[in-house]
Amino acid sequence: MENKVFFTPGPSELYPTVPRHMASAMENKIGSISHRSQQFKDIYAHAVSGLRQLLQLPDNYEVLFLSSANEIWERSIQNTVEQESFHLVNGSFSDRFYEIAQELGRKASKYEVPFGEGFHLESIAIPASAELIALTHNETSSGVSMPVTDVHAVRARTTSDALIFVDAVSSMPIPDIDYSLIDSAFFSVQKCFGLPAGLGVWLVNDRCMAKAEALQANGFSVGSYHSLTSLLSKAKAHQTPETPNVLNIYLLGQVVEEMNKKGIGLIRQETETKASLIYDYLERSTNFDIAVQEPAHRSTTTIVANTILPTSEINKHLSPYDMAIGSGYGNRKENQVRIANFPAHSVAQVQALVYKLEELVG
Amino acid sequence: MENKVFFTPGPSELYPTVPRHMASAMENKIGSISHRSQQFKDIYAHAVSGLRQLLQLPDNYEVLFLSSANEIWERSIQNTVEQESFHLVNGSFSDRFYEIAQELGRKASKYEVPFGEGFHLESIAIPASAELIALTHNETSSGVSMPVTDVHAVRARTTSDALIFVDAVSSMPIPDIDYSLIDSAFFSVQKCFGLPAGLGVWLVNDRCMAKAEALQANGFSVGSYHSLTSLLSKAKAHQTPETPNVLNIYLLGQVVEEMNKKGIGLIRQETETKASLIYDYLERSTNFDIAVQEPAHRSTTTIVANTILPTSEINKHLSPYDMAIGSGYGNRKENQVRIANFPAHSVAQVQALVYKLEELVG
Repeated sequence: MENKVFFTPGPSELYPTVPRHMASAMENKIGSISHRSQQFKDIYAHAVSGLRQLLQLPDNYEVLFLSSANEIWERSIQNTVEQESFHLVNGSFSDRFYEIAQELGRKASKYEVPFGEGFHLESIAIPASAELIALTHNETSSGVSMPVTDVHAVRARTTSDALIFVDAVSSMPIPDIDYSLIDSAFFSVQKCFGLPAGLGVWLVNDRCMAKAEALQANGFSVGSYHSLTSLLSKAKAHQTPETPNVLNIYLLGQVVEEMNKKGIGLIRQETETKASLIYDYLERSTNFDIAVQEPAHRSTTTIVANTILPTSEINKHLSPYDMAIGSGYGNRKENQVRIANFPAHSVAQVQALVYKLEELVG
Repeated sequence: MENKVFFTPGPSELYPTVPRHMASAMENKIGSISHRSQQFKDIYAHAVSGLRQLLQLPDNYEVLFLSSANEIWERSIQNTVEQESFHLVNGSFSDRFYEIAQELGRKASKYEVPFGEGFHLESIAIPASAELIALTHNETSSGVSMPVTDVHAVRARTTSDALIFVDAVSSMPIPDIDYSLIDSAFFSVQKCFGLPAGLGVWLVNDRCMAKAEALQANGFSVGSYHSLTSLLSKAKAHQTPETPNVLNIYLLGQVVEEMNKKGIGLIRQETETKASLIYDYLERSTNFDIAVQEPAHRSTTTIVANTILPTSEINKHLSPYDMAIGSGYGNRKENQVRIANFPAHSVAQVQALVYKLEELVG
């Protein structure tokens, strides 16, 4: 038995009940049921209605299941951008969304700030010709978060009917988003939902659907089995076009039900409390230095710090105590650490991590 | 505890050791490890080397992990067809591959035979302009299989350098394919490999890679994170571009290792024996009638029969005995049955099913 607690930014610690739900799924042979059966439709509907409740999702939004956030980046461009997208870039993942638009042959432009910095909306000119505006609520690579008030303020700064897409891969369901001020958001289940990887969740409103339908009506290819129209027609019947990751949809429904019982308010409050424990420690640490200078731009879910001691050394020190933290992203692997603060991590576990880090590296 | 044995055509009965491997994955926290870690790379390499051995795959082939066979249909067209593909169609899935080519804006043509029939190669003219020829080794919808000798004979009938793609979604690893006579094959893990759904495996040779590279070099979009070049560059480092379904790759490696210990020869022999048990019964049954007339075109892994008693009634009769068979595909739901004969089904289980069907419905 591995007792290690993973404070890595995803895949991360599983939500504590997941092994139990997985055992139950095996006992009940969920892995063998048909993806066209009523039993599967019930599993699908359970996950969707739980998410609707947890996120307080308006009725004009659909919940769609795809394979990864990478796939959602691709499907977003394919289905809603005929010519041009615009990206706010402040790290590796927001930049990857921008690149994907280019790889799909679209004209993509970006407004980029240095790694570790956030945006000041007043200095950004959004091109009127952009059909999609890509925001990243939480940059998993840099630990920069876009304040929800800024996410909400983008609409008022657009002069067109551009669709606003919010990458919340490593923060959903923590940000309290007003969905009427955006058009789409998406996340991966292996971050804040504490599930095994292999499922991306895409929230899209009627404006996204209308755009995809209009493109399709004009003879434009919007993909095939995972076009928005194909996904939507199956979603209405609580199914997916292909045989999906049934086990993960089942597990998502179970975990979301527990999150709803706990209450999103308490989950958000705990996240704040744990983030303060970590940031307060990083501030007084002699080894670490908070990577994001501007407090308003600091992520509460993926916390990044510069480190004097290489990350691999820190993890060697932590290993006997059954803890692991994430290394920096890309070429920052050894001189930054990333500490995940997800709902799967209890306040006590975070407290124990802070004590241990303080003892081991100062 | 559910004791039902699923003879459904996929998702189907899990390979008997899967619940044990899943428990072990949970104990060892495989769901939490980084997809960039050495531990993951080892899991990836283990699955690939096991598959190479099981399938006797030549060195000029790569093994790639995607999300579903639906995705592989799409990526095949995106990456290897600039203008035109040609499809042998004898059921719903081969037809869907053809439709996907059209949805992606390609000129696709097909040679189609009635549902339940196979092909006679001598009557098929393959267009010289086709860049990809799509064959379906095993049509899961109709129970028609293309004899492997016919799969091998296609190359000699082409006058161009078209790539030959073989859909073996519900038959791999049973057909003994000479990979030098085709260019690509693919399958889903929830069929013959007895795993939970959520992973498609794509085998591609150097000719497919060269085609994708040539298209890309000419400024043609071949997709983004799951372009062949992106998949290949990560595969060389035993990784995937996105965070994949780590648990399923782990489980695949475990099951394939057991299949290798058992030996592909024995697995194929058992498949033949079990198929004979089922077909012999269907032949003498007063309720069933083998759907595929020509014996050479009958699938050994997904066996289809016309039924007098509606399928849902048969399953009601079988239910107290903890058995379930598959319904017919699409509008044949109630007047055909599909019986899966996968490596997860033992000879004794198939024998028991045959006895019980004979007793219950004649």
